[in-house]
Amino acid sequence: MSAYDALMAHVRETQALAQVAGRLGWDQQTMMPPGAAHQRGEEMAAMEGVLHARRVDPRVGEWLAAIDPADLDAVGQAQVREVRRAFDRATRVPADLAAELARKTTAAHMAWAAARAEDDFAAFRPHLEEVVALRVREAEALADGGGDHYDALLQDYEPGMTAAEIAAMFDGMRPDLVELRKTALDAAPAPELTGSFDEDLQLAVSTRLAQTFGYDLQTGRIDKALHPFSSGSGQDVRITTRTALRDPFNCFYSTIHEVGHATYEQNIDDAFLLTPLGNGVSMGVHESQSRIYENQLGRSRAFTGWLYEVMRDTFGDFGVADADAFYRTVNAVRRGYIRTEADELQYNLHIMLRFDLERAMLAGDLPVAELETAWNDRFAADFGYAVDRASNGVLQDVHWSEGLIGYFPTYSLGNVYAGCLFEAMRADLPDLDASLAQGEVGPALTWLREALQVHGGLRTPRDSIAHACKGAAPSSAPLMAYLRDKFTALAA
Amino acid sequence: MSAYDALMAHVRETQALAQVAGRLGWDQQTMMPPGAAHQRGEEMAAMEGVLHARRVDPRVGEWLAAIDPADLDAVGQAQVREVRRAFDRATRVPADLAAELARKTTAAHMAWAAARAEDDFAAFRPHLEEVVALRVREAEALADGGGDHYDALLQDYEPGMTAAEIAAMFDGMRPDLVELRKTALDAAPAPELTGSFDEDLQLAVSTRLAQTFGYDLQTGRIDKALHPFSSGSGQDVRITTRTALRDPFNCFYSTIHEVGHATYEQNIDDAFLLTPLGNGVSMGVHESQSRIYENQLGRSRAFTGWLYEVMRDTFGDFGVADADAFYRTVNAVRRGYIRTEADELQYNLHIMLRFDLERAMLAGDLPVAELETAWNDRFAADFGYAVDRASNGVLQDVHWSEGLIGYFPTYSLGNVYAGCLFEAMRADLPDLDASLAQGEVGPALTWLREALQVHGGLRTPRDSIAHACKGAAPSSAPLMAYLRDKFTALAA
Repeated sequence: MSAYDALMAHVRETQALAQVAGRLGWDQQTMMPPGAAHQRGEEMAAMEGVLHARRVDPRVGEWLAAIDPADLDAVGQAQVREVRRAFDRATRVPADLAAELARKTTAAHMAWAAARAEDDFAAFRPHLEEVVALRVREAEALADGGGDHYDALLQDYEPGMTAAEIAAMFDGMRPDLVELRKTALDAAPAPELTGSFDEDLQLAVSTRLAQTFGYDLQTGRIDKALHPFSSGSGQDVRITTRTALRDPFNCFYSTIHEVGHATYEQNIDDAFLLTPLGNGVSMGVHESQSRIYENQLGRSRAFTGWLYEVMRDTFGDFGVADADAFYRTVNAVRRGYIRTEADELQYNLHIMLRFDLERAMLAGDLPVAELETAWNDRFAADFGYAVDRASNGVLQDVHWSEGLIGYFPTYSLGNVYAGCLFEAMRADLPDLDASLAQGEVGPALTWLREALQVHGGLRTPRDSIAHACKGAAPSSAPLMAYLRDKFTALAA
Repeated sequence: MSAYDALMAHVRETQALAQVAGRLGWDQQTMMPPGAAHQRGEEMAAMEGVLHARRVDPRVGEWLAAIDPADLDAVGQAQVREVRRAFDRATRVPADLAAELARKTTAAHMAWAAARAEDDFAAFRPHLEEVVALRVREAEALADGGGDHYDALLQDYEPGMTAAEIAAMFDGMRPDLVELRKTALDAAPAPELTGSFDEDLQLAVSTRLAQTFGYDLQTGRIDKALHPFSSGSGQDVRITTRTALRDPFNCFYSTIHEVGHATYEQNIDDAFLLTPLGNGVSMGVHESQSRIYENQLGRSRAFTGWLYEVMRDTFGDFGVADADAFYRTVNAVRRGYIRTEADELQYNLHIMLRFDLERAMLAGDLPVAELETAWNDRFAADFGYAVDRASNGVLQDVHWSEGLIGYFPTYSLGNVYAGCLFEAMRADLPDLDASLAQGEVGPALTWLREALQVHGGLRTPRDSIAHACKGAAPSSAPLMAYLRDKFTALAA
């Protein structure tokens, strides 16, 4: 067997085991009996141990050294590129540091949940200080003798991207977003949804929406969970959704969002099954799919016109006069503190705040002791009102407690990529609005599948977007033009 | 760390991984999307590879060699005994033989399903010949230079038991069973269940029965599946059940049966969690729990009196006049070909037939080519009428296609053990019938938990039963006395 074949056999098994571990996570959120938590912890730890041992297996390094990429085709070269990246990453972090990070983040996560319930940042502060210090050590190990620490962490989520590039992009977007936000909030408020919506009927509409957006239930399933998520790759990609009696949009748009993630995985070339190319290529590109499904397609005037009729057929008259009013309701811009409840316009301001603060923390320019003040100052500057309590501010997100630094910007990168893709798609599909108005998402899905999804991890994240956009490098301009057009018109 | 501690740390992780692999099996039968079969096969194979590598890890042999059992308490000695048994077993079978068995049984299983659908034993015959030949080779490897081949395979299912001992026991039981069977079939037939029974209500009764029989839903869950089964150990023990519109007993007694398996696992001492002692000790002892729950308790006159009222409350008048008639309906003995549909009396005759035939096949005394004839001859001798087609005869069970030889006798061993336990339980609980008549299974469950279940794998299977029966060695006499009393009275 050639070194390449031996490497790929090893990697395929590792990928299969990673799918098993991922499904344990799905099970924990959907099916696990409540009393099984301790045992499940042991099971997860054992799986992590197996996966880690395979990822740092010295044979991987030997196979990589024995392979001459010139002997391989483009797919083989891409496989090797991804294996090498994962191997370098796994072998650079000392095992005791990884173990300490796992321990500390588990403790920090519990401390965060308790602190959030009490609106007490001071109680969380020492835990976050330890987590940041450990992530700095990890970044030093990953950067391996040089390079930006934030960039080192970012590579886990968005390979090839740099913090400087993101900062330049975000800094360019921010004034316009703040301005647009003011315009939207100064306008007459959108009609609010009132009344209650049967939750079984919500789930029925949700399943219909999932199928409308191309989710294949032959290789997927939908369950209820506390938080919506998508889990798994290849032939077994499961999503969850949730219902709230008075807020059917939460159910519907969560489902469409997760279907964006899930169909990306389902649509990857079968030839890449259980290989490093068989997953979505980065968090940012993944988020571009969930966002374009949810926002550019799902919250468009054309598609909401169809959804309005579906909701009327399902729930009867629910107090929204017509499809134009419904479009405004779906896209309402309201005051609020919470990122996960934000509209597609304000969402990016939430992300930019977090990106700047976590970058400063990691660089040592912002002591954790000053984080809450910095958060509140920045929020007041961008949103125009003061944070009222820590659970509505610095304690609202789980990420930092879990050591996730470098992850936040991928959400807005996803929006930026979605903007690029949507511009290119519209150029190719002049009749897009007409089909969306009939609830026909098919042409858009086919375009996304062929331009991007089918290729999985074949190209780098940046090149994946550029390939889909016929060579145009990712830029924030299309997203900003889209947001300006949409929310200026809505405010008129 | 001492060799014992190092060994146990390794073994605990292996047990945790085995739980994960087992839960994949559960998922496959309950939750898996239909299109995920190929990927699931890869996932299962990868997990099996990991488990096998850990089971034959040379360090296990080194730790075992370094441990002096005299340094350990009784629990430690039992742990080492179980680890040694598993290690010897795993290391004796050459990897290529194990791989060939996995391949051939997969093919044989598919061939069996096709042959059964066509009632065509000849189509299955070459596959079974290969499987038997491979199992003979495996038995030679396991017996390691001597010893009975059947005994070597039997150790996987019922450690410490021998084929000669089982044969002597079964040969002693068989004439009485044939005689009792005649008596039962000559009597006036029991009232048949007619009408239909709402399947959601069946599930509600089934859940109530599961809880009545002590199933803890904090560490378990009930789902529907094609075949009822119990899966998992420790804090995560799941069962499945099924419904048929006209046959609620199938649902109810399948549930009680699986709850017997599941509560055995749930009730094992927490100190044994994820260790070799943290599972039911053998197939036979496991089956003794499912059978005593299902039959000696669940099909008793006293308990069926309570169940009759539950069914009347749930389904209204369902055409059975009173609790005495209901008891006869529940315990009806009818003609039939199929093992899994047999009553508790005839079931054992089905097992004895299979035990004698598979033992002869393995010994080379019965060529596979003559198996169907031998089956049909034996069936006519014991049941009094001819097999009408292969799917009602030699092709009815999946076991041999999967290479399971040595497994069948554990079903009847379970009945024998259940007979022993029930005799001892009745001696300790003089008011058992009075509580069963109130639907109170608690005293019986407490007795089983304390006498047997809590101890898990601490003692050998034989000693586990003997311990629960205050030293009395397992014997078929209590079961035969129970069956004679019950079915003679029912036939009167």
